[in-house]
Amino acid sequence: MSSALRQHIEKLITLTDEEFDYVLSKFSTKKLKKHQFLVQEGAEVLNDYWVVKGLLKAYHADEDGKIHILQFAMEDWWISDYNSLVYGTAATINIDCIEDSELLVISSENRELLCNEMKGMANFFRKKSHAGYVALQQRILFLLHKNPQERYNRFLALNPKLLQRLPKTLLAAYIGVSRETLSRLSHP
Amino acid sequence: MSSALRQHIEKLITLTDEEFDYVLSKFSTKKLKKHQFLVQEGAEVLNDYWVVKGLLKAYHADEDGKIHILQFAMEDWWISDYNSLVYGTAATINIDCIEDSELLVISSENRELLCNEMKGMANFFRKKSHAGYVALQQRILFLLHKNPQERYNRFLALNPKLLQRLPKTLLAAYIGVSRETLSRLSHP
Repeated sequence: MSSALRQHIEKLITLTDEEFDYVLSKFSTKKLKKHQFLVQEGAEVLNDYWVVKGLLKAYHADEDGKIHILQFAMEDWWISDYNSLVYGTAATINIDCIEDSELLVISSENRELLCNEMKGMANFFRKKSHAGYVALQQRILFLLHKNPQERYNRFLALNPKLLQRLPKTLLAAYIGVSRETLSRLSHP
Repeated sequence: MSSALRQHIEKLITLTDEEFDYVLSKFSTKKLKKHQFLVQEGAEVLNDYWVVKGLLKAYHADEDGKIHILQFAMEDWWISDYNSLVYGTAATINIDCIEDSELLVISSENRELLCNEMKGMANFFRKKSHAGYVALQQRILFLLHKNPQERYNRFLALNPKLLQRLPKTLLAAYIGVSRETLSRLSHP
């Protein structure tokens, strides 16, 4: 799993073997079973997680128990409650496993350490964050003005592999339509 | 305006006088009148902009000319077409001035240069991007499951000063409700 992380980082920056070993030393590993929670609402959030294998969802459940999906994460994606991580507040979302999952874990403290010690890692996380920001802006534009069919088509175009692994109920909760509406959409 | 930029940066990192002068040397200035465009759909986007004074909006206009607001920016905020800036593609949104505006301009090239030369600046932009990412996630959650009144209340709570400067039509386009719906909301 360490070679996968190295490949992931080296898409954006270059590291020597020694540098990568040092970066890796700041990570630990975690395994979770399907349905297990990684983050629960109200808990303290100290870590960011990179998915080695598996599939997770981050979501908010409203008063009626209806869930609204903030993000999914499969292999090569990062997931956490970033609001809590950035501001040091209790989690306002839940994260659990849609499939058995293996994660690489880095604490916020260790990430800051790496970024303060290594310009390359500061730039790696900066660029990842920029790309994430852009993806969220695009999602907002789609939520503001695209109809369910267009939202579905976009999700399919961006995430063909993810779509195959997702229960339809969760896809509906992500694109912001009812399960009934989703079933009426055409599947190109 | 340079002292304002220094204050803005030094909320997150510390710079010596020499370092700040170097950072500042990578910026230029730009003044625009109300209604003038900063970015137009289809154009190349090479710069990021920090607002010294004024108010702008970034938006997408759909086929019917209805506008959907991606972001506002007033004093101390950054604005650009980040999708174009990150991926080097043509602008898919417009940015124009709601008020006469003064901007500090940094090219993407100069920002990369600063981040590659100065760990502090890499961390500054990384942290700004993290905070922006979190704000967008919160907006998505509100778009997915909050009603117009709750969206309005949240906007008011987060941006009391901005609210006073915004035409109601633009506020409606930001929170994703019709102008008619907005006028029926209670204003605490």
